[in-house]
Amino acid sequence: MFSFCIMPFPIIAAAATVGLVTVGALFWRIARIKVTDTAALAISSKIARGAMMFLYEEYKIISIVALIAATFIAIFASISAAAAFVIGAILSLTCGFVGMRAATMANVRTTLAAKNSGERAAFLIAFDGGGVMGFAVASVGLIGLSLLCLWNMSSSNFELLLVSFGVGASFVAFFARVGGGIYTKSADVGADLVGKLEAGIPEDDPRNPAVIADNVGDCVGDTAGMGADIYESYVASMVSTILLGLTQYHGDVRYATLPLVISALGLIGSFIALGANKVIKASSSTMLRNATFIAVGVFLALSYVYTNLCGIDQNLMIALVVGCAAGIIVGLITEYYTASRPVRKIAEAAQSGAATNIIYGLSVGLESVVAPVIILAGGIWIAYTFGGSMFGVALAAVSMLATVAITMTIDAYGPIADNAGGIAEMAGFGKPVRAITDKLDALGNTTAAMGKGFAIGSALLAALGVFAAYAEKAQVLIINVMNPEVLAGVFIGATLPFLISALTMRSVSKAALSMVQEVRRQFKNIPGLMEGKAQPDYDRCISIATRASLREMILPGVLTVIIPVIVFVAFGKLALGGALVGATVTGVLLALMMANGGGAWDNAKKYIEAGHLGGKGSPAHHAAVVGDTVGDPFKDTSGPALNILIKLLSMIALLLATMM
Amino acid sequence: MFSFCIMPFPIIAAAATVGLVTVGALFWRIARIKVTDTAALAISSKIARGAMMFLYEEYKIISIVALIAATFIAIFASISAAAAFVIGAILSLTCGFVGMRAATMANVRTTLAAKNSGERAAFLIAFDGGGVMGFAVASVGLIGLSLLCLWNMSSSNFELLLVSFGVGASFVAFFARVGGGIYTKSADVGADLVGKLEAGIPEDDPRNPAVIADNVGDCVGDTAGMGADIYESYVASMVSTILLGLTQYHGDVRYATLPLVISALGLIGSFIALGANKVIKASSSTMLRNATFIAVGVFLALSYVYTNLCGIDQNLMIALVVGCAAGIIVGLITEYYTASRPVRKIAEAAQSGAATNIIYGLSVGLESVVAPVIILAGGIWIAYTFGGSMFGVALAAVSMLATVAITMTIDAYGPIADNAGGIAEMAGFGKPVRAITDKLDALGNTTAAMGKGFAIGSALLAALGVFAAYAEKAQVLIINVMNPEVLAGVFIGATLPFLISALTMRSVSKAALSMVQEVRRQFKNIPGLMEGKAQPDYDRCISIATRASLREMILPGVLTVIIPVIVFVAFGKLALGGALVGATVTGVLLALMMANGGGAWDNAKKYIEAGHLGGKGSPAHHAAVVGDTVGDPFKDTSGPALNILIKLLSMIALLLATMM
Repeated sequence: MFSFCIMPFPIIAAAATVGLVTVGALFWRIARIKVTDTAALAISSKIARGAMMFLYEEYKIISIVALIAATFIAIFASISAAAAFVIGAILSLTCGFVGMRAATMANVRTTLAAKNSGERAAFLIAFDGGGVMGFAVASVGLIGLSLLCLWNMSSSNFELLLVSFGVGASFVAFFARVGGGIYTKSADVGADLVGKLEAGIPEDDPRNPAVIADNVGDCVGDTAGMGADIYESYVASMVSTILLGLTQYHGDVRYATLPLVISALGLIGSFIALGANKVIKASSSTMLRNATFIAVGVFLALSYVYTNLCGIDQNLMIALVVGCAAGIIVGLITEYYTASRPVRKIAEAAQSGAATNIIYGLSVGLESVVAPVIILAGGIWIAYTFGGSMFGVALAAVSMLATVAITMTIDAYGPIADNAGGIAEMAGFGKPVRAITDKLDALGNTTAAMGKGFAIGSALLAALGVFAAYAEKAQVLIINVMNPEVLAGVFIGATLPFLISALTMRSVSKAALSMVQEVRRQFKNIPGLMEGKAQPDYDRCISIATRASLREMILPGVLTVIIPVIVFVAFGKLALGGALVGATVTGVLLALMMANGGGAWDNAKKYIEAGHLGGKGSPAHHAAVVGDTVGDPFKDTSGPALNILIKLLSMIALLLATMM
Repeated sequence: MFSFCIMPFPIIAAAATVGLVTVGALFWRIARIKVTDTAALAISSKIARGAMMFLYEEYKIISIVALIAATFIAIFASISAAAAFVIGAILSLTCGFVGMRAATMANVRTTLAAKNSGERAAFLIAFDGGGVMGFAVASVGLIGLSLLCLWNMSSSNFELLLVSFGVGASFVAFFARVGGGIYTKSADVGADLVGKLEAGIPEDDPRNPAVIADNVGDCVGDTAGMGADIYESYVASMVSTILLGLTQYHGDVRYATLPLVISALGLIGSFIALGANKVIKASSSTMLRNATFIAVGVFLALSYVYTNLCGIDQNLMIALVVGCAAGIIVGLITEYYTASRPVRKIAEAAQSGAATNIIYGLSVGLESVVAPVIILAGGIWIAYTFGGSMFGVALAAVSMLATVAITMTIDAYGPIADNAGGIAEMAGFGKPVRAITDKLDALGNTTAAMGKGFAIGSALLAALGVFAAYAEKAQVLIINVMNPEVLAGVFIGATLPFLISALTMRSVSKAALSMVQEVRRQFKNIPGLMEGKAQPDYDRCISIATRASLREMILPGVLTVIIPVIVFVAFGKLALGGALVGATVTGVLLALMMANGGGAWDNAKKYIEAGHLGGKGSPAHHAAVVGDTVGDPFKDTSGPALNILIKLLSMIALLLATMM
């Protein structure tokens, strides 16, 4: 039995194989469906090409910045650490690439399935498409880290390699999230402001020059960006837990490898949930919801068996349960704020104008942070108490993220369904098809809100885990806020999320403005465009969004990387510890406020569009559109950027401490 | 020489006498001016009556809640502590009453001086009117605390009495600030939405039924509310510094009384600045600005002499300089964000609609926290380092607030000038008079923004001082964020400012809605109102704003008082320490963001109204009005409420620790 436990790698290898095979199988299942409809194919090719063009340009910039960072790591740490950093970055980029490729293939096939075979077939394709991203993130992350551990665990610079690998993932995540976030919202706002409001044409109308860019945005922001974000949390939480486990349990391999095994068991749970989803014949919404519960249930049962067999401290099981429970509860609270009573209240406030709509939405966003944060704080306290140290908190993060394959599948399903609707509209498939894709899209919006809550919750726990590892490596086990360096650090760190939010919101404004000008130009200069007799120049809009978003992502990215280094060098490790706490606190709160406020405004607009309070075109609707437009950068650019900010800051701090 | 130092009370008594005599003299100078214009008198009487009616109702509610709190204190601590609490509360209420009485007398006299004698005479009256509040706050606070120290310093329950006195001031401040803040904005938004936008009549038009309520709001929110806020900071910073000084210097009376002497010297500096202002013949704006610099200069010079004569550690002089410098710099940064380039950018963003105006304004608000907080964090670090402990930080707070008489004078000047303009408009005094009052009002708006920055900065330092006193009394000198109770506390505390902002913003929405309905009703039901043939029912609007704001202030107030008690009892003193840190950090950041964002939107609207980007009535103007309306509760309700929140939380924590 003991040999089973000191050799956890077979379990991991089995799970990883299952994961990779699933990725391949899902990909193949989508690819083999022939797309015969030429109209739909033409549109989807444009989207796919736009998305790949963006990825190509984005990856080029990320590669340059990453190579500079790698050079620094090679000089100040070691060449092998730089290599680990690069591999960590490349694996993240790979997940993004594979996931987005699948998404841009699944979207058109979902549309056609909705046209030819009905809702269930369409749902399953979109779900499969999301599954590629989900299982890729989970298995690639697990394999990368496990191989690193297997080959280097006894090496003296193991910790440095591990941390460098994690920093690589974080690094890519920040740029992918911020670049994708600015892209998607500049295209969306640009398309809406001119198309819907000025020209008065419906959403996804093929006459709108920004319509393809808008659909590309869903892929690059909501799919690739979200994937990189979750991948980072997943890797960061494992890295920190391995480090903490090594110290806490004096190198006991059972504990040091526990995070890897936990993630492997979560991957198996996700796989079973995916299978169950195919077998059980339930409504799409039930399926989406059940998938999570099945995955978590299987995962916890397997973990219980494993920890018992290996004689692992059973108090840690409580940390695992806490992690899963906190993730689900935070998701449900998010759902409440973005899909229920508060949304109706915001819609009602829109009746007295845009200003009251904004005020009420902001107040909902502000209020919505309270319950999730109290849940997470309670979770932290329980996980710490039963885990005996921050190891418990870090383990709770691993547990929350263990079933990431299925969570990410559900997340990535949303933009595919959204895209499918866009393609149906542009190809002129008529109302019945659009009704199906709209239903799938609405489902996706709810899951997206839940997914964002989950992403923020897991980011918080992951960041705290990394923070604890930093404190241990830097030997600052007492971070006393009564100390002046710490106190000043807390306040300075707390301003960072405000700064990054400000920069990214302004970037969206700027990028959207160039898009608005281009769309106006095309409407004016292309004769016959409004009558549908001439084609707009989609590519130009795509390239404007691409260039604007990539240009705008550099400043926040570089600031985020450099500021912790400056604080560390100039004010020392205590100040940096304080800064991490400050940034984590305000980062999580602002991220929640922005995600929930933005989601609530969006759904308030949709509530009115569904015919309430005067319906489309009423004064309330106009006011609600303003709220939605304000909410767009909140929920899809600035909020998500903060998720990564807090993780990237603590990963860089951890790297600095490890390099010392 | 030593006898001079152990008897600081003569200095204090002299300063306090000067202060009280100034209050009386200024009051008398205003009162003796005869108001002969019956139209203006009728209007100003209505404003004065409305303001007094609000104060009467508000004080009734505050008295009831305070008596309940006093009963708890009497039961759990002692009857004398309850008495100190009541006296602290009564003194704050007295300042509010006297200051507002003077403001409602000075407003009409400013109008008439503008009509009959020109700008300078009008400016001086408004300035005198503000001076009553300013010098009342400074001398009443100083006298109350000094007598308490003189009579009880050797008593065994001195600390408890001192803290109870401070809690009394904080308690009143919260209700006054929140009640006044909701009143002023519900009246303002109500008057604007129906009057300006729906009926198309100008600001301060006598046909608008909410116009008197709007003017009353300026008095009760901006004068009485701000006065209670600053009074609280002033008292809280002295209380905490006395407590810290007693411990740090083992009862050395020179240090324990230092905060009182510092404040006395600041009062003398303010008096000299007031006098210099009368003598020097400069433009109004130069006078306003110079007043602060003269007061600070004299104060620091006197402090230097005193600390040298008494042999007080000269390192503490650095803390004094840091306090003054930080206050001025934060004020100047606030001025930049609310009166310069960022404002023009927001106005330009309004050209593409309300949504971009809001997004840009939010981004300015978010960014505007960075520089002030870094300045304050640097100040904290320097004051701590040279002061040798948190005593230095607390002393910096006392120093920043020492010249409160002149700062508050300038603050209270603003709403008087604003009111004077309203009276000129309603009395139909014509353009030349209105031009003068508009100029004085514009000056007041700039100083108001600076005043808000100063109020937040001083609130932060005061709260930190009280927090340090709490840590010392509760004997939790290490508040380690790696401890699970502290960490959970930090996150839970951090949500409180979000909750209070959400509640107060929603309260403004609700109260404004009742006001909108009433104004609409009057326009519909009173025949001849729009033609100016019939009088609106001003009183009904006043009573609606009064009732709505008082009803809405109770929940946030009670929550703020009860939550620290619950955290303390349920989770212990470490968790409460963490909660204070969390609440202070997010409270200060949100308060700055809201104050600056709101001020910037307001001035962006004014910039367009001044004829830029299309001027009044242009699409950009409409968009800017939406931004201004969103900014109103930001800058005048929720933001200011957070100032008090952070002080009240730490005062209650200190009381709990002292009662243990």
